[in-house]
Amino acid sequence: MEVKVMKNILGENEKIAEENRKLFRDKNIFVVNLMGSPGSGKTTLLEKTLSKLTKKFSVAVIEGDLFTARDAERIERQNVPVVQINTAGGCHLDAAMVRRAAESLNLDEINLLIVENVGNLVCPAEFDVGENIKAVVLSVTEGDDKPLKYPLIFKESAVAILNKVDLLPFTNFNLEQARADLSTIHPQIKIVETSCTQETGLDDWCNFIISQVSS
Amino acid sequence: MEVKVMKNILGENEKIAEENRKLFRDKNIFVVNLMGSPGSGKTTLLEKTLSKLTKKFSVAVIEGDLFTARDAERIERQNVPVVQINTAGGCHLDAAMVRRAAESLNLDEINLLIVENVGNLVCPAEFDVGENIKAVVLSVTEGDDKPLKYPLIFKESAVAILNKVDLLPFTNFNLEQARADLSTIHPQIKIVETSCTQETGLDDWCNFIISQVSS
Repeated sequence: MEVKVMKNILGENEKIAEENRKLFRDKNIFVVNLMGSPGSGKTTLLEKTLSKLTKKFSVAVIEGDLFTARDAERIERQNVPVVQINTAGGCHLDAAMVRRAAESLNLDEINLLIVENVGNLVCPAEFDVGENIKAVVLSVTEGDDKPLKYPLIFKESAVAILNKVDLLPFTNFNLEQARADLSTIHPQIKIVETSCTQETGLDDWCNFIISQVSS
Repeated sequence: MEVKVMKNILGENEKIAEENRKLFRDKNIFVVNLMGSPGSGKTTLLEKTLSKLTKKFSVAVIEGDLFTARDAERIERQNVPVVQINTAGGCHLDAAMVRRAAESLNLDEINLLIVENVGNLVCPAEFDVGENIKAVVLSVTEGDDKPLKYPLIFKESAVAILNKVDLLPFTNFNLEQARADLSTIHPQIKIVETSCTQETGLDDWCNFIISQVSS
């Protein structure tokens, strides 16, 4: 069987990302770039954990979506400042978008900014937005082959959230295999297992964020 | 709440796609561009239906992945000619990639070519590869809000495969809502409901492809 490697040339985004990073550092804001496939459960994870995080931090959220403000509306109900970015078809957030969205927030009153990226396991990993850490959500319904098939996003992320573990009995997802592959791709990655419907593992995720902000 | 629209400029791909389309038409090959999120079940759908389709057609498959030849290996076990494209991080197949992959196939011996795109609900929809129809797989575990949030791929697709319906009892996916939203976005779209583990709905998918090739 033939395997053809065809690499695209990707754009430059680093300069603005570095400016963002300096801005956020000056304002003492820790930034999480939250990524994952459509439907992996990113927004629900935020809905279920913002109340825990706001006990520790003054949190704001930037929501990235192609269209609609549905996710921002869900986050707004958590009484957290939120800005929605619509990319109008664009497959990822870039640093310039996050900059413009951040200008709508009162950066002097925030110390944790969570950027929920466009649902996509590929492109968001390639575009630094000036975050401190990347986090990736993988639903177990997506299959345990995803870390090896989409390694960059797992290589780039400080934490992998294996989500919807309540559905494990109904899938052939092999947790041990996924953990082994994740550790091969990124030995330092923190792995947490969560179910937002059963509300399990959510403290692990929150505690990891707390430890990162404090360190 | 503020909603910012920030549109990226997308590359040009149409010329090569039109050349591909002419090539495939001259060779009497019907081409399906199969798309969907990572883990929506595209490869498993092919595994489960290639034996049905090869009764009617001489089928070949082009597999698109960022890395690995895992999907092509799975398809090869179905005794169907297959070429793996590795995009080395690229988030979609483009027409030039499909052209180069097609050059490895004996186009005189094929009349149905299925191109399984990179797992991504966004970018593949924007890049015509010279196909006759696009098809999109949506796993019910991804959530019923996906058609409205990622409308382009559903607008472009002749058929939407609502997959993993065996997991419906364990999700809050509202089939009626999804069907209504799909019909709003694309009134002519054909909707099939499949479970590859329970082997339901697979004939609906195959019969739709057969009807399209014949028409």
